[in-house]
Amino acid sequence: MDDAVAVDFGEKGLVPAVAQDAQSGEVLMLAYVSPEAVERTRETGRAHYYSRSRDELWEKGATSGHTQAVEEIRVDCDADTLLYIVEQDGGACHTGHRSCFYRTLEGENVGEKVFDPDAVYDDE
Amino acid sequence: MDDAVAVDFGEKGLVPAVAQDAQSGEVLMLAYVSPEAVERTRETGRAHYYSRSRDELWEKGATSGHTQAVEEIRVDCDADTLLYIVEQDGGACHTGHRSCFYRTLEGENVGEKVFDPDAVYDDE
Repeated sequence: MDDAVAVDFGEKGLVPAVAQDAQSGEVLMLAYVSPEAVERTRETGRAHYYSRSRDELWEKGATSGHTQAVEEIRVDCDADTLLYIVEQDGGACHTGHRSCFYRTLEGENVGEKVFDPDAVYDDE
Repeated sequence: MDDAVAVDFGEKGLVPAVAQDAQSGEVLMLAYVSPEAVERTRETGRAHYYSRSRDELWEKGATSGHTQAVEEIRVDCDADTLLYIVEQDGGACHTGHRSCFYRTLEGENVGEKVFDPDAVYDDE
């Protein structure tokens, strides 16, 4: 029996995916996914996304080592947004923070810094 | 001193906003926001979004009564996604579930139903 939800990828073929830390519940990041990114995520158990700026599929952590092991994928009521529930290795944010949402709109830094981005990305 | 982060609303003038329950950490929903929606949210302390299908500003819960009191607005590293941390009254989802992410991609219902949508939306 296959009751899988048909995701509505829309005319652009992409939907947003929110990554949430399975342990702490922290919202880590939002990125976009193509059908292929979702398929690769399901096949490998590691979070894949689609970069709109680079126009390519990417695996989270392929460069930094900060991969996301995906425990579960949820889909919203309209089937046009996904929620990846993940075990985050290291930090999700390229700035070195655990979560990309490390600032308030007023500019206050409320996030936890967990690595030095210069040390992680220095080959790029 | 005003260090407010300048949100990058892009060419469409909208960014996604994730709503997260301040108590449980549950991811409740994702919707889009315009600059005006963010302004109204900050002014009133209640979550406002912008409907792409109806092309209008809306206040969450204006019909259902299931409003969201916004405790904090966070912005991500690229300043193109917001996170509303909210006190959710009732349920966030029009299906009666606490969260719009009540299903896995495989179609399993893992969400909590907290109200009867027929009773809430019967005037529409």
